[in-house]
Amino acid sequence: MRSGALEALSDADCAELLRSHDLGRIAVVDANVRPLIFPINYVFDEGVLVFRTGPGTKLALAPGSEVCFEIDGWDPDAGIGWSVLVKGVARDVTNPRSAATSRLKFWPVHPVAPGSREHWIAVWASEITGRRFQVQDAR
Amino acid sequence: MRSGALEALSDADCAELLRSHDLGRIAVVDANVRPLIFPINYVFDEGVLVFRTGPGTKLALAPGSEVCFEIDGWDPDAGIGWSVLVKGVARDVTNPRSAATSRLKFWPVHPVAPGSREHWIAVWASEITGRRFQVQDAR
Repeated sequence: MRSGALEALSDADCAELLRSHDLGRIAVVDANVRPLIFPINYVFDEGVLVFRTGPGTKLALAPGSEVCFEIDGWDPDAGIGWSVLVKGVARDVTNPRSAATSRLKFWPVHPVAPGSREHWIAVWASEITGRRFQVQDAR
Repeated sequence: MRSGALEALSDADCAELLRSHDLGRIAVVDANVRPLIFPINYVFDEGVLVFRTGPGTKLALAPGSEVCFEIDGWDPDAGIGWSVLVKGVARDVTNPRSAATSRLKFWPVHPVAPGSREHWIAVWASEITGRRFQVQDAR
């Protein structure tokens, strides 16, 4: 990787980063067209991102809407930063209507935050992008 | 802190967490009412969050709009998670019109990602909220 350059990550790299992490942030848009961000634990595989939530803003706003999900990392010693963005429409799959969605509820989605999170939300990715950079003398 | 509870952070705790970090994510809304998330380096003080950017989506969408900014942390050994959310209207202060905004450009905002970031954007916080939890046997 060329030092100092901002480079696009490959689809395979994005998928591997998404699979190897379990904490990210989802953004939704409220009724007044204002963005909101929430940290979530998630599982990603096969182009689908799954998380769990309880009654509240995420459950009210995400299903049926375009959402955006992000993970990132920054290693100050190596000077390497990266981020991956997932866009797609969220669907409530708590009561699945097909075998394809019912299997999602077997995924190991384990929210660490306390509270009841009985709703399963899946985001079918319509677009996944990532970028990475390396800088020298980052510290 | 009671184990297992999700508790609201005080205003002072939120401000201290915002001041002691320099990497977070900002969400904006695009013309099709879809959210977007970008990682940014920032400086927060006195209820104002400042970051720098170059020509692109953030510069096109943030100024004049309600944005949302988030930082979070998760310590798996201690089982402690937290997040802080800042909402407010973003303003381009690259060419400041007052002493109050011109001082913002003296703040030490140092983006680590490569690229020209000559535009200074300030978000005057209209709402700052945070929450924290501690769980046992997190691993």
